[in-house]
Amino acid sequence: MSAGAIILWELLGTAALILLGNGVVANHVLRKNLGHGAGFLFITFGWGFAVFVGASIAAPTGAHLNPAVTLGLAIADKVPWSDVPYYLIGEFAGAIIGAILCWLAYKKQFDDHPQPEETLGIFSTAPQIRSYGWNLVTEIIGTFVLIEWILLSPTYKADVTGVPTFGNSALGYAGVAFVVLVIGISLGGPTGYAINPARDLGPRIAYAFILPIKGKRDGDWSYSWVPVVGPLVGAALAALLYLGMQNVS
Amino acid sequence: MSAGAIILWELLGTAALILLGNGVVANHVLRKNLGHGAGFLFITFGWGFAVFVGASIAAPTGAHLNPAVTLGLAIADKVPWSDVPYYLIGEFAGAIIGAILCWLAYKKQFDDHPQPEETLGIFSTAPQIRSYGWNLVTEIIGTFVLIEWILLSPTYKADVTGVPTFGNSALGYAGVAFVVLVIGISLGGPTGYAINPARDLGPRIAYAFILPIKGKRDGDWSYSWVPVVGPLVGAALAALLYLGMQNVS
Amino acid sequence: MSAGAIILWELLGTAALILLGNGVVANHVLRKNLGHGAGFLFITFGWGFAVFVGASIAAPTGAHLNPAVTLGLAIADKVPWSDVPYYLIGEFAGAIIGAILCWLAYKKQFDDHPQPEETLGIFSTAPQIRSYGWNLVTEIIGTFVLIEWILLSPTYKADVTGVPTFGNSALGYAGVAFVVLVIGISLGGPTGYAINPARDLGPRIAYAFILPIKGKRDGDWSYSWVPVVGPLVGAALAALLYLGMQNVS
Amino acid sequence: MSAGAIILWELLGTAALILLGNGVVANHVLRKNLGHGAGFLFITFGWGFAVFVGASIAAPTGAHLNPAVTLGLAIADKVPWSDVPYYLIGEFAGAIIGAILCWLAYKKQFDDHPQPEETLGIFSTAPQIRSYGWNLVTEIIGTFVLIEWILLSPTYKADVTGVPTFGNSALGYAGVAFVVLVIGISLGGPTGYAINPARDLGPRIAYAFILPIKGKRDGDWSYSWVPVVGPLVGAALAALLYLGMQNVS
Repeated sequence: MSAGAIILWELLGTAALILLGNGVVANHVLRKNLGHGAGFLFITFGWGFAVFVGASIAAPTGAHLNPAVTLGLAIADKVPWSDVPYYLIGEFAGAIIGAILCWLAYKKQFDDHPQPEETLGIFSTAPQIRSYGWNLVTEIIGTFVLIEWILLSPTYKADVTGVPTFGNSALGYAGVAFVVLVIGISLGGPTGYAINPARDLGPRIAYAFILPIKGKRDGDWSYSWVPVVGPLVGAALAALLYLGMQNVS
Repeated sequence: MSAGAIILWELLGTAALILLGNGVVANHVLRKNLGHGAGFLFITFGWGFAVFVGASIAAPTGAHLNPAVTLGLAIADKVPWSDVPYYLIGEFAGAIIGAILCWLAYKKQFDDHPQPEETLGIFSTAPQIRSYGWNLVTEIIGTFVLIEWILLSPTYKADVTGVPTFGNSALGYAGVAFVVLVIGISLGGPTGYAINPARDLGPRIAYAFILPIKGKRDGDWSYSWVPVVGPLVGAALAALLYLGMQNVS
Repeated sequence: MSAGAIILWELLGTAALILLGNGVVANHVLRKNLGHGAGFLFITFGWGFAVFVGASIAAPTGAHLNPAVTLGLAIADKVPWSDVPYYLIGEFAGAIIGAILCWLAYKKQFDDHPQPEETLGIFSTAPQIRSYGWNLVTEIIGTFVLIEWILLSPTYKADVTGVPTFGNSALGYAGVAFVVLVIGISLGGPTGYAINPARDLGPRIAYAFILPIKGKRDGDWSYSWVPVVGPLVGAALAALLYLGMQNVS
Repeated sequence: MSAGAIILWELLGTAALILLGNGVVANHVLRKNLGHGAGFLFITFGWGFAVFVGASIAAPTGAHLNPAVTLGLAIADKVPWSDVPYYLIGEFAGAIIGAILCWLAYKKQFDDHPQPEETLGIFSTAPQIRSYGWNLVTEIIGTFVLIEWILLSPTYKADVTGVPTFGNSALGYAGVAFVVLVIGISLGGPTGYAINPARDLGPRIAYAFILPIKGKRDGDWSYSWVPVVGPLVGAALAALLYLGMQNVS
């Protein structure tokens, strides 16, 4: 597949993921919404099935949508290293576009909200107790589960081009949606489960530098490296486990 | 397939969709119900799996149930333009019938409810912050995601007659239910996610002109064009994207 | 299949259905439970996936678990009328056994509950507004949707012996669980969606005549015919629709 | 498969199960979490889909993750008795490791929590009303449903090596997740549905003897045998039922 095609499909899928993922938090946080205050189960369902939609759309490229997935598949030798830059471009560009679309869908709600400085949390994650080391541990563990499942589960057999095959199933990517759902439910409490550098950094950039939200705060840059580094470390560890398990029989 | 068959299958499917979709809102809104006040996650599950039921029933015609789906598939050349009028007739007739059935199922609850002027919201959508332009944007974005998923997802391969094939899967239309679930959760906050002109206008007509609800309000006609135009624009944009992506490889 | 086998499989499946379905209401109603007061979405998930478990277990006989399903399939000529009595025996016997098992699982909670006269609602349905005619309408509509989906959905192809075939799917009966989930969410408000004579009458008999719950009330026999007659009427209407649609092409 | 491979796959799967299962309770219980107080539906979704993840990872060994499953499959002659010890080692070792990982992911939340003596409930189950006999009954019934479904459901055909085959399905283990979800919803109220000796005893050991939680209580050893014995009895009864049903036709 051409570099342009990789970029385009990943961009479309990641944009849908972030539009829907940021959207559920906007629905919950901003006060003039039908889903206002709907709670954390609501949020985890939003993010979980956002992955289903985004991944289904980006199926031709294997639906990475996430630099941690790309890194894990590359280390596991399931996607060529030479394609990695195109995946990353598509993922980050899509994440920024998705965040902008979310803002457009909730434009009047953003204008109406009395605490605009709260709105960073719609786009990016923040820890409930700030402690860079332990926040990193939480993100590493959450991402490790995601990549471990992708690589080891027989329900998600990525071939050498990183594209899973689902037979005739009508529900191909529902499995990964279930995994992201439960990671949110079970490991999302302390840091908001970024588990994806593009999911966190892309919208953070959109918030800080692009979106004209009046009274908004800064991008909380001192924390911003945690949801980038943590997921990459977790993905690398899971890929190493996968490689090790290839020798077990 | 004959015109009559298209009309009948779409009518049956859309009636089930609207019966169940309006039903969940009636359950939540009307006070003498087991689901009274059950919340927005509850409502989105109701609408999401209402699509599963309605779409499964209308499978022989490809389960459009929605003029925006019909328009998107027609632009994408997946359903003949000559069949479009029959789809629309079935969709609108089914939506009106579904709304009437919902009223019958909740007849005593309607009679008992102390604020009958609130009951329009059971049948049709309304914005949380009224702003026709931005409400339109929200409906365009929501419907765009729906039609983009239908056209691009490998889990929903519509053939040239607009009928998806799911192999032997027992869960064929669960995928589209998941998509509608997450659109509600993630993009339903500002306008109640009509994303379907028949879903909104049909029950609005039933409410305003057919159902004998005492003390009911008017059909809020000044807003009624938004959930018709928005979904059609969103569907057209998604179909254009689909056509454009056919050249990417 | 022998009469004894039909009875046994239907008994096992219906017992699991009622154990789990009555169980979720017990969990919600009785005060010393982790799920106490967990709400109606919780209850509908319990009943929905109770059907998944019960239906999977009773797969060899087509997993009716419900006299309304048996009647609908018989009218639609998908199960021989001569087998109907065996299905009914299994369904009612299983429902009674399931109710007893539920009581055993929650024995200490029943003993502890301060309002034992409330406990009938754990086993059987009751209307929120008592009006036999309209309650009947609600039960007819709810059951009509269930049987319409079973007969018309391509995801549930019952062969002439009433046994659906799901290909290699690992999730065969998840579809019917989704349907029961949404019927509860969308149509369960007014009457508690019996939509199954055995589900309602079996546990009612167990409550009134078998279970030694101190201070319990009577079986509310004046209402007890509604959740029997309504589902049978709804099933018959759906089967007639199915037969009529066979001539549409 | 070698003894080492059985141990390793079961260890990986059970560790994921317990990490995610204990994680959802930590998220709900500990106060500085996004999911704090999210409720029992939230908890049951966490445990249910924790099984999906753990089982998918341990697919090569049939994904027991649970000594009760191992016992049931052994009695039903679907796994060799000689392999049972390796399964048990992997399950208990994985459970202990999962509990430790959960503690790491929630380290700061544990440190912050004002009632550290409450934290045993994150790792192990406890009855809402203490009564060893009746608590045992509840655990027997819950586990019976799980093992009955595994052995009888056509959606989970374990071959003679205990490994289910799901055809091409992308969602192989979603079915068992649905079963565990509904067991929690419907039968989890009185005792917290251990239904798995390793799930309960492994984290209990980790809590009492390994994790340095300040101010923690003891392991509630007087109750600890109930969630071990109950599940084993329930599994044995279900396996006997399965063997008996083999003669029914």
